[in-house]
Amino acid sequence: MTAATAHYRIVAEPGAPSVTIEREVAAPRDLVFRCFTDRDLLPQWLGPRRYATRIEEMDVRHGGSWSYVNIDPETGAEFGFRGVYHGEPTPDQFVQTFEFLGAPGHVSMDTLQLIDRRDGRTLIRTISLFQSVEARDAMLEHGMEYGVKEGYERLDELVDRLQDRAGA
Amino acid sequence: MTAATAHYRIVAEPGAPSVTIEREVAAPRDLVFRCFTDRDLLPQWLGPRRYATRIEEMDVRHGGSWSYVNIDPETGAEFGFRGVYHGEPTPDQFVQTFEFLGAPGHVSMDTLQLIDRRDGRTLIRTISLFQSVEARDAMLEHGMEYGVKEGYERLDELVDRLQDRAGA
Repeated sequence: MTAATAHYRIVAEPGAPSVTIEREVAAPRDLVFRCFTDRDLLPQWLGPRRYATRIEEMDVRHGGSWSYVNIDPETGAEFGFRGVYHGEPTPDQFVQTFEFLGAPGHVSMDTLQLIDRRDGRTLIRTISLFQSVEARDAMLEHGMEYGVKEGYERLDELVDRLQDRAGA
Repeated sequence: MTAATAHYRIVAEPGAPSVTIEREVAAPRDLVFRCFTDRDLLPQWLGPRRYATRIEEMDVRHGGSWSYVNIDPETGAEFGFRGVYHGEPTPDQFVQTFEFLGAPGHVSMDTLQLIDRRDGRTLIRTISLFQSVEARDAMLEHGMEYGVKEGYERLDELVDRLQDRAGA
């Protein structure tokens, strides 16, 4: 049900080093914000289904650091990511830098904005800025969108579970 | 002399939320890097001549914070800026987030790259990424380029003084 009504949009203009993704989710803004900022909830939905996620560091405040590892259970291979938070995190704006340690030195900046749809739904907007159009295109070619889409399907499932639990 | 031979270029494509500025300076790369990362040297050249700069915080490491204040000596008015560093700072790449506290919530990310010209000169490249084209245009309209150009003239003077001192 959630998936059938979900709004999804990706904007990646030619010549601009940015990607904007919008996705609606059937949960109130505060709950969605918790799913992005709580170190127990985030690894339950972030990224593609086939990887496990281990949070190494997640100090959600201005100047705090984060890092996590994706683990491929088939091979044991690990893929690391890291960044720092800028500004006091709020549902209106949550900013972090982002680096995939498999391509070290390519740093991007992500802005998360959560928009209250006032019907129990929330629009998640992410703006990702890259150091060049080439770096943006490489991320798109390496499955960025696929990972994000599957992550949001897992988020649908997580917020369903959390809301059932709260209502039980 | 320095100014007459200085290479300067600004690229701000329509529709792209980024500004790239290149400027050559007559100093070796290590010295230029020190001028960007040393808390005693940075306030001697950063920004327009008419303001004094007070560094509040400058913890140059991955996850470190920085903040400084521009002071208008005529009026006593102060303008604050803050950000965090991403990655281990090297002359190849020095990344920081950037926020002018007079327009809170507008966060950009700057990448500094220093390219050794192998003749005692260094090309300074900065790539600034903004959350939208509108935010980029607002920064340009509010004198970003003027401040940067005047700052680099002051940097020419600073590296001349530092090199004379070293050679004396």
